[in-house]
Amino acid sequence: MNSDLEINADLACHILGRFIREEVLKVGAKGVVVALSGGIDSALALVLAVQGLGADSALAVCMPYRHSHSSSLADAKLVADKVGVALLVEDISGQIDAYFGSRPTEDLIRRGNKLARERMSIAYDISQERSALVLGTSNKSEMLLGYGTIFGDMAYAINPLGDLYKTQVYQLARHLRLPEAVITKPPSADLFAGQLDEVDLGFSYREADQVLFYLVDQRRQEEEVIGLGYSPDLVRAVMDRMRRSQFKRRPPLIAKLSARTIETDFRYPRDWGY
Amino acid sequence: MNSDLEINADLACHILGRFIREEVLKVGAKGVVVALSGGIDSALALVLAVQGLGADSALAVCMPYRHSHSSSLADAKLVADKVGVALLVEDISGQIDAYFGSRPTEDLIRRGNKLARERMSIAYDISQERSALVLGTSNKSEMLLGYGTIFGDMAYAINPLGDLYKTQVYQLARHLRLPEAVITKPPSADLFAGQLDEVDLGFSYREADQVLFYLVDQRRQEEEVIGLGYSPDLVRAVMDRMRRSQFKRRPPLIAKLSARTIETDFRYPRDWGY
Repeated sequence: MNSDLEINADLACHILGRFIREEVLKVGAKGVVVALSGGIDSALALVLAVQGLGADSALAVCMPYRHSHSSSLADAKLVADKVGVALLVEDISGQIDAYFGSRPTEDLIRRGNKLARERMSIAYDISQERSALVLGTSNKSEMLLGYGTIFGDMAYAINPLGDLYKTQVYQLARHLRLPEAVITKPPSADLFAGQLDEVDLGFSYREADQVLFYLVDQRRQEEEVIGLGYSPDLVRAVMDRMRRSQFKRRPPLIAKLSARTIETDFRYPRDWGY
Repeated sequence: MNSDLEINADLACHILGRFIREEVLKVGAKGVVVALSGGIDSALALVLAVQGLGADSALAVCMPYRHSHSSSLADAKLVADKVGVALLVEDISGQIDAYFGSRPTEDLIRRGNKLARERMSIAYDISQERSALVLGTSNKSEMLLGYGTIFGDMAYAINPLGDLYKTQVYQLARHLRLPEAVITKPPSADLFAGQLDEVDLGFSYREADQVLFYLVDQRRQEEEVIGLGYSPDLVRAVMDRMRRSQFKRRPPLIAKLSARTIETDFRYPRDWGY
């Protein structure tokens, strides 16, 4: 790993646990809801929530679709059990099949986005039932590469992982001794059979994270990063993904007409009223 | 109406039509998708899109639930017909009932939020199928009062109405000669039988808009607005709603760890890559 990406895992876990705790307490919420996919990101988010709030203030929900890999639910259970958090299992096949029954498509991206948005919708419904906050589980690599569904997995109240590259998620996961099965399996959004993040992306997170770090955190130019020895194809592919997905990372655009427009001029913090 | 809220409807329509056109063309989208509820806001948004892009570049979709008022679909048809836009009708009862079949609740707010998020999810699916942008239809009154569903009707790519108070939406609707049935029916989110916005809110949009204009656009203090002759109960209720709903108007919060955090320091415009 590039040493630039090495972080103080102990300190980061401490900061992120406290972040969750403070954000929840500040608005008077009773805890957090985490959509566990069986993957490393949501597992880490849940463990950080338990560190910050305790197991009783976290609820995990796993929302398999009938095509989901059987290991997804099994690994979600493993994680929830390890930290003593209640796990709700909510199969989404009925809703998804009802929709695509009326509008059939074989487009795997569209089908995947529908799954991601259904899961968000359910996580929000549960959060309302429990007066809890929906915890985001998108990491910085996914977000910068646009590898996620807008208003799906990219929609949540607070996100402890959004400033951690995927390789840093691994560091924290190892530090916190997450189950080995969750750490070692290849990253997959599991939105269709056989899906693998690094196949979809065309490069590995290890490669991408180094390039992203130079481009974003260090504000270097593409040519400069190529000059450091990274392949022009990789650097351009990363940059291209980042450019085209900016809309997923910024709030919707409101046409300005007045002196004080929401999100342009009227921008108190989210918790202004608390 | 308070004269402060009177706007130049002709100029506003021109600006908003052009806003839609420019945002669509800039990112190379083929048009817009508008979720027509049968109400005045989505009707206005659709007509503005037709003014900006032409009827062929707009698609309307009406997504009734089995409890939706029959006038909702009828009025949506009226509007789409008037401007010559194709209307897709997609009943969402199957999905909604599949979910609440497994997690039954009589909580009307939770049920309503699920409807709103399902409609967003479908509008986004259609937008992907058509390479179009989802057009928002939330007005400034609803948004400031938090009278909408986060990641439901408050989720979209671009919103031509977000800086127009509800009373200003009426001005534009009359200027553009929207169907009388749509203009005169009482505002309703139609998320449950008999729902009326102004009953839910406890005050009228006419009253709220004036108070919001003083509080937000003119940055006046609550006591000052009360001093202008508005009832303390009204002013405090409006202020309270606004404070408690700020989270719906601001992007999710990402825990900051690095030098350049998404949405905190990394904030290029949505269309940066185009």
